[in-house]
Amino acid sequence: MSKITNNFNIKEERNLSMLMDFYELTMSNGYFVNGLADTIVYFDMFYRKNPDGAGFSIVAGLEQLIEFINNLKFTEGDISYLRSKGILSEEFLQYLLTFKFSGDIYAVPEGTPVFPNEALITIKAKVIDAQLIETMLLLTINHQSLIATKANRIVRAAQGRTVLELGARRAHGADGAIIGARASYIGGVTGTATTMAEIRFGVPATGTMAHSWVQLFKDEYKAFETYAKTYPDTCTLLVDTYDVINSGIPNAIKVSKNVLEPIGKRLNAIRLDSGDLAYLSKKVRDILDDAGLTDCKIVASNSLDEYIITELLNQDAKIDIFGVGERMVTAKSEPVFGGVYKLVAVEEDGQIVPRIKLSENEEKIINPGYKTVWRLYDKISHKAIADVITLANEIIDETKPYTIFDPVLTWKKKKIINFYVKKLQIPVFIKGQCVYELPSIEEIKMYCKDQIDGMWAEVKRFSNPHKYYVDISQELWSVKQDLIKRYRNSEDNE
Amino acid sequence: MSKITNNFNIKEERNLSMLMDFYELTMSNGYFVNGLADTIVYFDMFYRKNPDGAGFSIVAGLEQLIEFINNLKFTEGDISYLRSKGILSEEFLQYLLTFKFSGDIYAVPEGTPVFPNEALITIKAKVIDAQLIETMLLLTINHQSLIATKANRIVRAAQGRTVLELGARRAHGADGAIIGARASYIGGVTGTATTMAEIRFGVPATGTMAHSWVQLFKDEYKAFETYAKTYPDTCTLLVDTYDVINSGIPNAIKVSKNVLEPIGKRLNAIRLDSGDLAYLSKKVRDILDDAGLTDCKIVASNSLDEYIITELLNQDAKIDIFGVGERMVTAKSEPVFGGVYKLVAVEEDGQIVPRIKLSENEEKIINPGYKTVWRLYDKISHKAIADVITLANEIIDETKPYTIFDPVLTWKKKKIINFYVKKLQIPVFIKGQCVYELPSIEEIKMYCKDQIDGMWAEVKRFSNPHKYYVDISQELWSVKQDLIKRYRNSEDNE
Repeated sequence: MSKITNNFNIKEERNLSMLMDFYELTMSNGYFVNGLADTIVYFDMFYRKNPDGAGFSIVAGLEQLIEFINNLKFTEGDISYLRSKGILSEEFLQYLLTFKFSGDIYAVPEGTPVFPNEALITIKAKVIDAQLIETMLLLTINHQSLIATKANRIVRAAQGRTVLELGARRAHGADGAIIGARASYIGGVTGTATTMAEIRFGVPATGTMAHSWVQLFKDEYKAFETYAKTYPDTCTLLVDTYDVINSGIPNAIKVSKNVLEPIGKRLNAIRLDSGDLAYLSKKVRDILDDAGLTDCKIVASNSLDEYIITELLNQDAKIDIFGVGERMVTAKSEPVFGGVYKLVAVEEDGQIVPRIKLSENEEKIINPGYKTVWRLYDKISHKAIADVITLANEIIDETKPYTIFDPVLTWKKKKIINFYVKKLQIPVFIKGQCVYELPSIEEIKMYCKDQIDGMWAEVKRFSNPHKYYVDISQELWSVKQDLIKRYRNSEDNE
Repeated sequence: MSKITNNFNIKEERNLSMLMDFYELTMSNGYFVNGLADTIVYFDMFYRKNPDGAGFSIVAGLEQLIEFINNLKFTEGDISYLRSKGILSEEFLQYLLTFKFSGDIYAVPEGTPVFPNEALITIKAKVIDAQLIETMLLLTINHQSLIATKANRIVRAAQGRTVLELGARRAHGADGAIIGARASYIGGVTGTATTMAEIRFGVPATGTMAHSWVQLFKDEYKAFETYAKTYPDTCTLLVDTYDVINSGIPNAIKVSKNVLEPIGKRLNAIRLDSGDLAYLSKKVRDILDDAGLTDCKIVASNSLDEYIITELLNQDAKIDIFGVGERMVTAKSEPVFGGVYKLVAVEEDGQIVPRIKLSENEEKIINPGYKTVWRLYDKISHKAIADVITLANEIIDETKPYTIFDPVLTWKKKKIINFYVKKLQIPVFIKGQCVYELPSIEEIKMYCKDQIDGMWAEVKRFSNPHKYYVDISQELWSVKQDLIKRYRNSEDNE
């Protein structure tokens, strides 16, 4: 039962423990009845491709994963349901009743730029513990990483202008809206329209008027006048209900002159929600400036994303604030973050024995073994140079040159000097106890911005970005080749 | 506070009342302080375009909307939060504290095929009541209609074969997974992997094994053997961990012969999760048949959707069950259902006065007025011929020929004879009381299938479908033209 209480004493109780693929239960029951419940295994969560052909992604969702694991337990009701399925053993059901996650989890902190094939999360746990968290781990990290990554692209496209998240109505369910706003904020948006995202996560919520406000009144002027009198300090007027140039803007200016200026207030902004935003924003800017409203901002919305914003700015659109809806909250151009959760090792007689999953496609063969990920930074520019995946017990010595090589095209080598390293993963759970102090959402957002600033522009390009080095250590490479050979050989023998 | 209790006494308490765009609060406060709180308004929820270029969509999500409205209330905590924003009047906050939805809602039942511009939901309510439900109404109907529509396309592509929903791990949040499984089931899938969707909604949940099961054991045969011994009645084996043809299938057959057949059991199915599914399924079918396992089903999964399934079947793939993940649960090819919520009329001195919202784009101009939607069926074939949108007080007389005409190209006319009509919308709330008896999910699913069967194949084509007639009555057309002229003329006068 997840219990959330915030500053406003608004509670939410949800039991998401049963949000799992049913195979996690059939497998766990199978491990249990076959005496394998105490087997220690290692799983990696990683992804294979950045959405939108991007050079990197931003990982997010760890806080919700921690919350899920801290609250993971099975109620009598859950057990009654499972019993009704008639395929799980009674002993296993009793085991679930007192189940508590007891494993270790290492994770890359939220807001970190990450790359394909790196373990964003590594689990060391008893096999049932590791299996039962699979779906929520993937769902949470996939969803929020998808949205944080997309939001960050859109925010970067806006080149310093404000971006607001307005997508709740097109989100995939309530969590899509509320948690989507959280992930967008990590990715860099300034605020959201989703009120509940402020209550739950402290994402600043704002809003002014819809077309319905304008339509309710007998005419547009009356609608604007009433709004300005009600909200003289924050007056933003939506000007496209009838006709932007011939009606909306003249009425907005009239309200500014008649209502706001006489009491020493300024018209804060006008909003365009349809039409050609480049043409209209330039024309509107001129009209507003001519009327002395040079400080009145222009907000634009209507199916925006990083591609359209880039084009609008290339055409010198005069937009101060972008409102972005469906294309951010659903990551419309590519709405799937394809994180997977793979068994990479099993402890046998106290030894960590690497495991592999093969594929006809070279790039889909997993990196076996208990591993960690390092990021190498240039000592002078402090920019990230390369990431290296090693076995967990390896050390990268900063005092010596380090040679990285492409794991597929192994003749592609590069010697790195004058660098320092950081491990990307940090301990989050140790023996089932959370050992990670959760940063605030503001800290995550700032950390994300710092990390993005520390990357070369070539990697951040929207189209055809430079491929950042993500290499594997010589030792890991050897382990992987040995395992591939073993399974290939067994095949040759048939 | 939404309280859900099911057969297994598993509760969920969520306060989603504050899941709204903040502008609903600024507007509502504005209506309140300007003495407009009792103004009766009419809103339509409709959409403009079917996803994926389809000929129709399937509406879903009404049950969750009803649940939301039944539980809509603002707690002291909500009010404290709103007060902290410093822009809403204390009188309005007190008003919210005792707020209860008191309006009328008419809606098209879940599972109905629908078309652009038809009001899926019509609201008659006090303006604040209508405004405060906007976001959740749109979010719920948009999300579930999107997924039900997509699932139905995928199910139809499978031509009678079983389709399972397996997408939780790639869904946009927990609701995306759980409620997504509900919508998929309405659209026609047979079951889901998402355990909680069975607990919450009775969608049958199933699952067998992941690659991790196979990897955990020292070899694939041992993994299969253990599984078969544990689940002899429902044994499905995942055969692509190492090599389908040279290892997976031979081991599966060996297990069938050594473990299952001696105790009178059959191998239920094998699952392919990678590789060329057309090639592999045909080859695997031959090998299984040669081994006497003609009744062993083949399950296939891996980024499937209606397009790939159609191609696989065109290539004579031997697949009995399709497992569909990310492309259904996110509606990947077009992940947005663009439903909108528009003010269409306002009561002034007891008169219903139509309102319009103009646009440069003819098709984006809304249909004004308090309206309803009719479906005309052919008396002999019982197929749906056309839908007609009329003002709410109009009657379509089945005993006389009825002439429909295209609302843009008005010379396109068609006289309908030998027909009967049904109103698509039914009353759901009257004066705030729910008057609708919720059908079971099985009833919705069967109703949906019946309705789809009652449509011409031409409308159901995946590509370039026949455009079904959705026309407006002469009376509505006149109201609309008058309003357009009024706003066009006022513009000409400037």
